Amino acid sequence: MTRAILWLCAALLLAGAGPARAEDGYDLWLRYRPLPAQARANRPVAIVARGTSSMMQAAADELSRGLGGLFATTVARADHAGDGAVVLARIGHDEAASLRALGPRLGDEGYVVRRITVAGRALIVVAANDDRGILYGSFALLRWLQTGHTLGAVALMSRPKVKLRVLDHWDNLNGSVERGYAGQSLWDWWMLPDVREPRYVDYARANASIGINGAVLNNVNASASSLTQRYIRKAAALADIFRPYGIKVYLSARFSAPIEIGHLSTADPNDPQVAAWWRAKADEIYAAIPDFGGFLVKASSEGQPGPQDYGRSHADGANMLAAALAPHGGVVMWRAFVYAHDNPEDRAKQAYDDFHPLDGRFADNVLVQVKNGPIDFQPREPFHPLFGAMPHTPLMIEFQITKEYLGFASHLVYLGPLFEETLRADTMAKGAGSTVAGMISGMAGVANVGRDRDWTGSIFNQANWYAFGRYAWDPTSASDAIAREWAAMTFAPDPAVVDRVARMMAGSREAAVDYMTPLGLAHLMGTDHHYGPAPWVSALARPEWNPVYYHRATADGIGFDRTASGSKAIAQYAPPVAQRLRDPATTPERELLWFHHLRWDYRMPSGHSLWEELVVHYDRGVAYVDQMRGDWTALKSNIDSERFEKTAALLGIQSREARWWRDASLAYWMSVNHLPLPPGVRAPAHDLAWYKAEDFPDAPGH
Amino acid sequence: MTRAILWLCAALLLAGAGPARAEDGYDLWLRYRPLPAQARANRPVAIVARGTSSMMQAAADELSRGLGGLFATTVARADHAGDGAVVLARIGHDEAASLRALGPRLGDEGYVVRRITVAGRALIVVAANDDRGILYGSFALLRWLQTGHTLGAVALMSRPKVKLRVLDHWDNLNGSVERGYAGQSLWDWWMLPDVREPRYVDYARANASIGINGAVLNNVNASASSLTQRYIRKAAALADIFRPYGIKVYLSARFSAPIEIGHLSTADPNDPQVAAWWRAKADEIYAAIPDFGGFLVKASSEGQPGPQDYGRSHADGANMLAAALAPHGGVVMWRAFVYAHDNPEDRAKQAYDDFHPLDGRFADNVLVQVKNGPIDFQPREPFHPLFGAMPHTPLMIEFQITKEYLGFASHLVYLGPLFEETLRADTMAKGAGSTVAGMISGMAGVANVGRDRDWTGSIFNQANWYAFGRYAWDPTSASDAIAREWAAMTFAPDPAVVDRVARMMAGSREAAVDYMTPLGLAHLMGTDHHYGPAPWVSALARPEWNPVYYHRATADGIGFDRTASGSKAIAQYAPPVAQRLRDPATTPERELLWFHHLRWDYRMPSGHSLWEELVVHYDRGVAYVDQMRGDWTALKSNIDSERFEKTAALLGIQSREARWWRDASLAYWMSVNHLPLPPGVRAPAHDLAWYKAEDFPDAPGH
Repeated sequence: MTRAILWLCAALLLAGAGPARAEDGYDLWLRYRPLPAQARANRPVAIVARGTSSMMQAAADELSRGLGGLFATTVARADHAGDGAVVLARIGHDEAASLRALGPRLGDEGYVVRRITVAGRALIVVAANDDRGILYGSFALLRWLQTGHTLGAVALMSRPKVKLRVLDHWDNLNGSVERGYAGQSLWDWWMLPDVREPRYVDYARANASIGINGAVLNNVNASASSLTQRYIRKAAALADIFRPYGIKVYLSARFSAPIEIGHLSTADPNDPQVAAWWRAKADEIYAAIPDFGGFLVKASSEGQPGPQDYGRSHADGANMLAAALAPHGGVVMWRAFVYAHDNPEDRAKQAYDDFHPLDGRFADNVLVQVKNGPIDFQPREPFHPLFGAMPHTPLMIEFQITKEYLGFASHLVYLGPLFEETLRADTMAKGAGSTVAGMISGMAGVANVGRDRDWTGSIFNQANWYAFGRYAWDPTSASDAIAREWAAMTFAPDPAVVDRVARMMAGSREAAVDYMTPLGLAHLMGTDHHYGPAPWVSALARPEWNPVYYHRATADGIGFDRTASGSKAIAQYAPPVAQRLRDPATTPERELLWFHHLRWDYRMPSGHSLWEELVVHYDRGVAYVDQMRGDWTALKSNIDSERFEKTAALLGIQSREARWWRDASLAYWMSVNHLPLPPGVRAPAHDLAWYKAEDFPDAPGH
Repeated sequence: MTRAILWLCAALLLAGAGPARAEDGYDLWLRYRPLPAQARANRPVAIVARGTSSMMQAAADELSRGLGGLFATTVARADHAGDGAVVLARIGHDEAASLRALGPRLGDEGYVVRRITVAGRALIVVAANDDRGILYGSFALLRWLQTGHTLGAVALMSRPKVKLRVLDHWDNLNGSVERGYAGQSLWDWWMLPDVREPRYVDYARANASIGINGAVLNNVNASASSLTQRYIRKAAALADIFRPYGIKVYLSARFSAPIEIGHLSTADPNDPQVAAWWRAKADEIYAAIPDFGGFLVKASSEGQPGPQDYGRSHADGANMLAAALAPHGGVVMWRAFVYAHDNPEDRAKQAYDDFHPLDGRFADNVLVQVKNGPIDFQPREPFHPLFGAMPHTPLMIEFQITKEYLGFASHLVYLGPLFEETLRADTMAKGAGSTVAGMISGMAGVANVGRDRDWTGSIFNQANWYAFGRYAWDPTSASDAIAREWAAMTFAPDPAVVDRVARMMAGSREAAVDYMTPLGLAHLMGTDHHYGPAPWVSALARPEWNPVYYHRATADGIGFDRTASGSKAIAQYAPPVAQRLRDPATTPERELLWFHHLRWDYRMPSGHSLWEELVVHYDRGVAYVDQMRGDWTALKSNIDSERFEKTAALLGIQSREARWWRDASLAYWMSVNHLPLPPGVRAPAHDLAWYKAEDFPDAPGH
């Protein structure tokens, strides 16, 4: 009895020991709640770290916290690896001697976690060629347990398939976040470097747990101030905090900074003074941040300054910056997201037109960062034609984790299937199997985190941060497996919970496509803030700012003809892909109106007319949201009240807004095509004028 | 042994049970950590609520949480008041029958908490004439225990001396907060009314604990959108959450709303259509919020629309709104903070000039809301001359809790002494003893809370929220007693902690005055953001935007002559006050340069020249900050690490910035007076040009 009480005390002590044990979402997927009793039978007795680096200590600390929580006990640090110990060791070290043969297969950052017997002692060994691998292996061991597996059965080996796994924070120095829906910037720029908030460490832990190894701290629409000494000191404070977790700090660099803070008269990349200014600036940054990652640059794009202001190419600009960073080992991530307001060409074609000719002309330490699709993070886009078209240039893919075009923080939209769809896309560039996943050197995700207590504005948005990291580690992952992992860690490794949560997540992105932009439609959102439907907008100054530019609906038909009879954008894809896209019948239905302008009575494979099929999709999207609400309600007894109630409230918003999207869209299409709704279909709740009158001057993130 | 372990378990269970038990400041002064063992001897056995209102339930819930935490046990709710029970009852109810005679002394909202014996049972009775009094009495009982007193000795009786005790939130609908330094708006306007964050309840609890009974939700620089149906629904959701805690919701009303959202052509208060629009709007609001408090209005001030746009007076404008609210019992809080850019008169005189002639012309349900001083929330101002000058008009006093002019969130500046100084000021309007405290019907505080985890951007800023509430309840309070109360509740009721923390707080405001604006100087802060020193600024478009307008330093002297030889502002005070202010020798030294322009060699009572005395004050302010750092360091073993480290970091910032203020100010004065520093005084670290070149485009709150 007394012993049982002591155990209870220990468990309670641990439950109260960590920061913020209330289920408010702060703990993310690193909750480490006690495992079921039977899973705690075979418990670890000590943690032995064979090394003293800060990264090794971070790994041991995490195991101490995680194993302590999961096994509801204290797992002490020890020097001697007795029976039942968890040992962190580099490949080749005593306890990891038997794993030596695996070394070459682990490479940099890879890990192996095995139960092995050394001199009669049964040990759990986390081994790697480097400390970063040991850190990742430690988190992998915890994940193994959190997802319902037993310690005795552990046998893990993995290495990342992508080298640069980076979060891009679109955070402004005044604390606002462009396209952020989770509160202010995670970085309290004003208080840095003096105040080091505990959340900075927890951010780093969360990233390390999913293998993210870089963070661009500031918005791509960058302020030159971020490169001043004052802000470099702030960035250095964050770099110091992140370092033990294997996360390098990067900065977005404003191309005209030599003028704005360097007081030069030009930022021409071919001007020796400009190049010298950037070299000196790089030296200054590296003096403060010895492992600084490098620059992310948005240049000559959407009004940002860039090399084209001086008649130079993107390669000229990128290479000049790359030369400044090269002596220190830094890289330039140069964005290919460019389109010019004075270019009458199809916006979807312009990035390819600009960058394809530059293939092979970039310095070795430049990566060209290409968005997943050719427009801008739409609910669905075909893969970007630059993938496969720049064989001599390292490419990064850029996804948006924050849901600028996907209902902001309040819609439950799991992005795993979106990542999967693009990464598995076959460019056919070097024959079948030339997937996007196979040709990327880095993956960047526009972060969805902010200062909200739950980090991402909703519990389910945490899954998108999680999935991004897991995909960056292995772009061939299956989205459903990631969803199940996340659900087990975030809620409970209970199949009844995991099955239902994963089911909700699985179709959620397709549902959003259906109620917003079905069948290949795109960019129909409200002006500027991108909140809600506005397919009728046609009077903005530039053609490509208007939804009507994208849907091209008339009385006769709908869709953007990108075939030979139209903008010819399909010619940017490899011939086998282009061949398939030429004909609506062989174009994937989900991208139909992206590539083709079709009559409203075009006959779909289902037998429906195109108009009828559109209606089916809108209704399907709405119905899916209702199904998610039902699934969530059924989970009420399995989920703590705070997370349950907030998610239920958000699903209520999503349900209302899905109907709004459907109704407003149908009302608009009917005003264009003058067709009746198919029999039995519910009419929009209001007339078109009502939807047009809606106005949201205070929409967030803009 | 087993019993001891069980107690330990219970304590641990409780420690882990509440939301967010980590010491991150979220719990404010309502931490309810277990009392020392000896103080837990006489523990309450049950909580009995004689009533079922939501307010009675809120009181009982708080006692359950608070007593449970303090006594490290579960204090169950019960229907029968057995020996040792805590009973909540209205005066006259069974268990409170013996307290009937106290009823008239308690009035509205007052409470009595006594240990009394009823039919042989020893009870703790919390009694009042109304449920609000019972709520306040419950918090008073908890405070009694939290500050180190025993349950058995409880004997409390109090009633508020001020009827309206209101927080003004300068929160914009887009989530930003004007002059906010604690993160975004506490209200997630975008997600309301669907998402009801737990922090809304905790905000209401905190306010109720100090007697605050009103909250103006939106910025005085108001958007008309806040009066649309969409935002009324959001405000109603907050009102529903606040109601059990006795907090009424108010809105700032934009005077031109009838034009902007009512589509009228005018907002003239004498236009019947305008009055009808406001009546209909009030009806609409009360339909959603039956106990809506009323409107706060900033009109014809700093560019805001108002009655003067139509040649009408402030009384005309206020009375028109008051008529719309009167049928529902609402009030208008009409701000007297007015000054006109085209008025060449001393800015300090303009509010009086505008409002004094209107005394007696306001409707019964209008309160004129007057800032504590005649300019704008400076580190020190004399009391506003309108106090005592409007005997026929109910006045509210407006303080700023957020530290716009006092170092933002990072400086430790306890405002209790500031509140005390103004409230105790004797206007002499009806002879000696005509204090400001005695003539106010309401007290408004510009809130310092935001979405930061610790609510206010620092732990010590919580004390200013706390002190504001305590002063609003009793404006004759002593600031040191409030500081001690707060310190005991926030850290520990340990004299070693309380003494030292209270000592730090006691002189902190005087220190800020000393290093920023000593001897009656004012408004020397950086342009717009009000961060840091900028006494040299002289070229802004309007005279009263420039620091030089306020200090008037020349080679000959410094200070603003408001005597008969100057702006004659002193004539706005009652004759005995004016008489004293006429002569520098009888003017309080702390307000010397507010009222007088004096030669640099003016001989101070200390024997120093004015210039020498200024230097002494700057150095004293800097030294005080260093002393606070020392005191804080000495407390390291008494304070949890998270709150200790953050506070230490902020004191580091304050120490640096106090020196900056001193050095920049001295460098500037020396450039004007060409005087040497007194012997032994440290020279500024940089030359004046260096200080002038400092630039803070990303300063918060603006």
